[in-house]
Amino acid sequence: MMRWKALISAALASASLPAVAMAEDGYALWMRYQPQAAIPGEVVRQPVSIVVPNATPTLTRAAEELRRGLSGYAAGPVATAPAVRAGSVMLAVAGDPAVASLHLPTRSLTDEGYLVRSVTIGGAPVTLVTGNSDRGVLYGAFALLRHLGTGGTLAKVDLTSTPKVKLRVLNHWDNLDGSVERGYAGQSIWDWWNLPDLKDPRYTDYARANASIGINGTVLNNVNAKADSLTAPYIAKAAALADIFRPWGIKVYLSARFSAPIEIGGLKTADPLDPQVAAWWKAKADEIYRAIPDFGGFLVKANSEGQPGPRDYHRSHADGANMLAAAVAPHKGIVMWRAFVYADTDPDDRAKQAYTEFKPLDGTFADNVLVQVKNGAIDFQPREPFHPLFGAMPKTPLVMEFQITKEYLGFASHLAYLGPLFQEVLDAPTGVKRGQTVADVVDGSAEGHRLTGMAGVANIGRDRDWTGSPFNQANWYVFGRMAWDPEADADTIAREWAAQTFTPDPAVVDPVVAMMMGSREAVVDYMTPLGLAHLMATGHHYGPGPWVSDLARPEWNPAYYHRADKQGIGFDRTRSGSNAVAQYAPPVAKRFADVGTVPERDLLWFHHVGWDRRMASGRTLWEEMVRHYDAGVGYVAGMRQQWDALRPRIDAERWEKTATLLAIQEREARWWRDASLAYWMSVNGRALPAGVRAPEHDLAWYKAQNFPRAPGHTG
Amino acid sequence: MMRWKALISAALASASLPAVAMAEDGYALWMRYQPQAAIPGEVVRQPVSIVVPNATPTLTRAAEELRRGLSGYAAGPVATAPAVRAGSVMLAVAGDPAVASLHLPTRSLTDEGYLVRSVTIGGAPVTLVTGNSDRGVLYGAFALLRHLGTGGTLAKVDLTSTPKVKLRVLNHWDNLDGSVERGYAGQSIWDWWNLPDLKDPRYTDYARANASIGINGTVLNNVNAKADSLTAPYIAKAAALADIFRPWGIKVYLSARFSAPIEIGGLKTADPLDPQVAAWWKAKADEIYRAIPDFGGFLVKANSEGQPGPRDYHRSHADGANMLAAAVAPHKGIVMWRAFVYADTDPDDRAKQAYTEFKPLDGTFADNVLVQVKNGAIDFQPREPFHPLFGAMPKTPLVMEFQITKEYLGFASHLAYLGPLFQEVLDAPTGVKRGQTVADVVDGSAEGHRLTGMAGVANIGRDRDWTGSPFNQANWYVFGRMAWDPEADADTIAREWAAQTFTPDPAVVDPVVAMMMGSREAVVDYMTPLGLAHLMATGHHYGPGPWVSDLARPEWNPAYYHRADKQGIGFDRTRSGSNAVAQYAPPVAKRFADVGTVPERDLLWFHHVGWDRRMASGRTLWEEMVRHYDAGVGYVAGMRQQWDALRPRIDAERWEKTATLLAIQEREARWWRDASLAYWMSVNGRALPAGVRAPEHDLAWYKAQNFPRAPGHTG
Repeated sequence: MMRWKALISAALASASLPAVAMAEDGYALWMRYQPQAAIPGEVVRQPVSIVVPNATPTLTRAAEELRRGLSGYAAGPVATAPAVRAGSVMLAVAGDPAVASLHLPTRSLTDEGYLVRSVTIGGAPVTLVTGNSDRGVLYGAFALLRHLGTGGTLAKVDLTSTPKVKLRVLNHWDNLDGSVERGYAGQSIWDWWNLPDLKDPRYTDYARANASIGINGTVLNNVNAKADSLTAPYIAKAAALADIFRPWGIKVYLSARFSAPIEIGGLKTADPLDPQVAAWWKAKADEIYRAIPDFGGFLVKANSEGQPGPRDYHRSHADGANMLAAAVAPHKGIVMWRAFVYADTDPDDRAKQAYTEFKPLDGTFADNVLVQVKNGAIDFQPREPFHPLFGAMPKTPLVMEFQITKEYLGFASHLAYLGPLFQEVLDAPTGVKRGQTVADVVDGSAEGHRLTGMAGVANIGRDRDWTGSPFNQANWYVFGRMAWDPEADADTIAREWAAQTFTPDPAVVDPVVAMMMGSREAVVDYMTPLGLAHLMATGHHYGPGPWVSDLARPEWNPAYYHRADKQGIGFDRTRSGSNAVAQYAPPVAKRFADVGTVPERDLLWFHHVGWDRRMASGRTLWEEMVRHYDAGVGYVAGMRQQWDALRPRIDAERWEKTATLLAIQEREARWWRDASLAYWMSVNGRALPAGVRAPEHDLAWYKAQNFPRAPGHTG
Repeated sequence: MMRWKALISAALASASLPAVAMAEDGYALWMRYQPQAAIPGEVVRQPVSIVVPNATPTLTRAAEELRRGLSGYAAGPVATAPAVRAGSVMLAVAGDPAVASLHLPTRSLTDEGYLVRSVTIGGAPVTLVTGNSDRGVLYGAFALLRHLGTGGTLAKVDLTSTPKVKLRVLNHWDNLDGSVERGYAGQSIWDWWNLPDLKDPRYTDYARANASIGINGTVLNNVNAKADSLTAPYIAKAAALADIFRPWGIKVYLSARFSAPIEIGGLKTADPLDPQVAAWWKAKADEIYRAIPDFGGFLVKANSEGQPGPRDYHRSHADGANMLAAAVAPHKGIVMWRAFVYADTDPDDRAKQAYTEFKPLDGTFADNVLVQVKNGAIDFQPREPFHPLFGAMPKTPLVMEFQITKEYLGFASHLAYLGPLFQEVLDAPTGVKRGQTVADVVDGSAEGHRLTGMAGVANIGRDRDWTGSPFNQANWYVFGRMAWDPEADADTIAREWAAQTFTPDPAVVDPVVAMMMGSREAVVDYMTPLGLAHLMATGHHYGPGPWVSDLARPEWNPAYYHRADKQGIGFDRTRSGSNAVAQYAPPVAKRFADVGTVPERDLLWFHHVGWDRRMASGRTLWEEMVRHYDAGVGYVAGMRQQWDALRPRIDAERWEKTATLLAIQEREARWWRDASLAYWMSVNGRALPAGVRAPEHDLAWYKAQNFPRAPGHTG
């Protein structure tokens, strides 16, 4: 007895574990590497060693991550070894002689793919992790850890995958003062003040997490950019981060403020056709590349919501993008130019403006420019039809921009798994060619583009659990996995996330995935059912504000979007209205334009219809709307029940936090439902269907709610 | 072999430790409870159990903390037991029959003191932790853990202590938007947006840390207060925190905005003598006490730096304080009224104004009012003579206000242990009576006040290590320990902090304490030697700005404080100048007023003297100043060497972070020295003494440095 006590004590001490058991605070994300009942012990039973014949900084990190993961799953130390023996895991690029002699099908892996396979080397059974580059091997190591974390074993491994999208990039809307626009998980993780000196270990964990899901780029600063981020001190700070991220296969990008040549360059203009301006950007790019040799390039929000841009000088977006592209081209950099524009003064349907402005520019962009397009034509709503630019600019690589942070879906507190939203957009047929989907446009297969990208507006902050709740981590995860494979399935990804984040035990995974899969639809139901959009309160977008109609610009007002009156509701985007529907390819346009064929979920996005219109269910539109609101609230109540039942199977801290957030979500779902119904009734003068619960307060009460300190405000 | 492997694995799993060894990230503060070579194993060798005959919420937490600590030190589980046996630790109040029968000297412990002693109960050797209240027992439990964490054992324990100050309070300058005025460790730990729902486990750890050092109150919001903190939603949020803190013996206080009756009460005035105003505050206090029955009371910054106050209505500070005091008196609440005032227009020496305004009010404050006085007459400088109000208001309890956050001492990045600063102020003789010190005034012994207090402006934020660096934790620690006993010794406290924070090994404690003990004097040397003050850059107070002389109000300018010209330097506060020195009691005033007897460290605070004045060393003032600057820089270089030598003995993460911060500190110490010397030379036209290094840049370079995003800005 004394002996094992001493040994346990020594084990605890030598691993420098804190003596106090750490709660599961969510910091480890999906990389918990815990011993699991579901893994039948192969790792433990047979000694494992890790072999890296030819180390690089990336392979060293891949090996260290495997050591960490295998040690965790095996609940004991795992050694690195100089040579393979039975049970080794070997990490080597495909060109390594030991790998080449195996004649494995590695050519199709291209640059970043991986192959993880049980092989025999010198008579010894070995798990080989390989790829054509050390980054491929790194992704293979994470694939192996994912395999083990979802119930797999080291016996007969055969995993292979190649990313379909080249640039898999997080967009941080992080300001230099530490605030995060639309951030709900605390301050920016970038401690600009103490960079480049202080290298927070969190930066490495951030890189590990991203590499584990295939993310290979990060834009450090807000698209509403300050020119300061391009000054020498901030370039040095970005370079310090780039040095940390590089071995993890992650490139650093910066949002560029178009007027920087004036603000920090001393020029009188930022006209992209002015040679001095072009020279300034070229010199600036050279300066950046001296500090960050593999700098990814620039992301630009121009002439949108008050940002400067080439239109200030009567130049086109292409003129602006191409000028910047020329500056970074000698260094193999790229420019991601956002299509999210809507004019201060344009009286046209906001949903049409990006297409109107960018479609004619197709074919005029330089080779190293990608145009970055939000998933829908308005702004990251709980549901939008796919953006009509997808399929409409065949000569231009289009980056899909998703918002991982839930600006319009309940901030950090609501449980809303975005996998189904992402999948719904990516799976949508563009109508341009038979069978062509948005995913085909994004991954370049539609037109053979080699430069492809997917961007996700990060939900990451300095909160201990990174994203403000355990379940928000799933949205970061699913973004990375779908950027790797835009045809991946939201349900499958939810399962692998849940298994790694909690346990592979189906008694946990099944109900957790069930909760997740319907959660986004629930938000649609209690916030904006049947194609409604942008009904949130002003500015911060927290809570309902369908009654708002007095803001200066028409398209700032929820009333602009729902157009409800005594007779009906919805935005007519057919020929009798704004005709935005004509921006889609003909088969899609036809389906959306016809009130008989448009999916009911998009009805009010495209059509203004009467409150008494019969729906497929036989109910009137008004009755159907009420049912959606109630279904949304009911779903949240159901999630609470499911989560309560999981209490014995989930660690206390994450269970408690999620339970609290679900309680907040149910309260706020009721608030959304009640406020919306109270408002619609004030417009349409109708009663609620029999048996339906009346709103808790009168409309005046809901209008009086006021949240001056809601998080995530613009900087 | 297989068996112990399995046992270790089981031990790891059952404790729900993360499989990956956690780095020492500083979160555990001084409560690490690690197995230590320096403890010769008593805890391990003999089974320990914890017995609580009559549990209360506070005793339960004390027992849990002991279980946690003893399990850590013993590196194994420690059980709770229903009855004492040999080796038990028993927690019980002195009135408990089992304790009363021992006839221990518990009466002198008063309300919060503790007695921890090895006793025999029913023939069994037991460690008894007792006090007259469960809070006393809680402090005893922490005293026992401190004893073990500094190398003590469970054999023959005899610890007893009673706090000398009644209110030991942190002041959080935390804004409702999550920013922290003068905060350098991230956002506010209060997540106001998600309160009262989300109860971050960090709130409990905050309470544990405070209880462990005897802090029994916390003011949640900035003294530059918003009235909103007194509205119902924010009262509910504060109540949620109070519920968490209560069992740890910690009361919640709020900063009150004096104009709240206008801003949220709908009144036309906040005149303290208006009956409607008094009634509003009374109703507001009643509302707060319904939510927080043990609410501590209000802290008020009035008529200072733009804050509203009774002077707006031509009433005195006493009128304002007494009106609020009447509102909380029925609930046994108190008011802490700050004396930090200086008028917008008063042409008099800023150092004199608080005394001028408050001294005449002595004797006019209600019984439940304390006047809170900063340690010095200006504003938390690296060194100030003690505030002349201490000793000058015998009829009024004076709260000592220290600043734990290092607004003027290098933010979070410089290592500056404030123990010597606190001790220097508390040990200062007031000159009022022979032998009376500032500590005697603060602890009430000078005049027999029963209501006494010490306040510390917190350096706590949401950073993982709470305070932005491992060593800043020591300043939180020493504040609590000195609030408990204002006559405690800074060196002793540094030793106990270092032992618990790192290891009791003298090979670590000795050099760490040596570094700490000279560190504050080093900051004085490289920033403001020989009595200089307030030479920091404008607004954020980061870096040197001795040349600043163009700000609107005279006392905002460093030039106001140093008054340097070609002939000499220093602020004449003798009779030939502002005569601020006359505010001290005669013996002290006499010593300070005489340039021959004033301590050299305070010379330029009180006197304007020539650059060639001979100092005690025989050097001229100018030569002596240069030596001080060089000594400050040299001390930091020395700390870096000492820390380098400690590398093998300190965990990697805390070592690395401290090493980086010391490098920053050395760079910035040089910057301070070089910028200051360049400026003084531009004023006095003198050369540097032979062999002294010239500033690295010219004065223009130093003046051009600009830090628009320095942290800690006012809200």
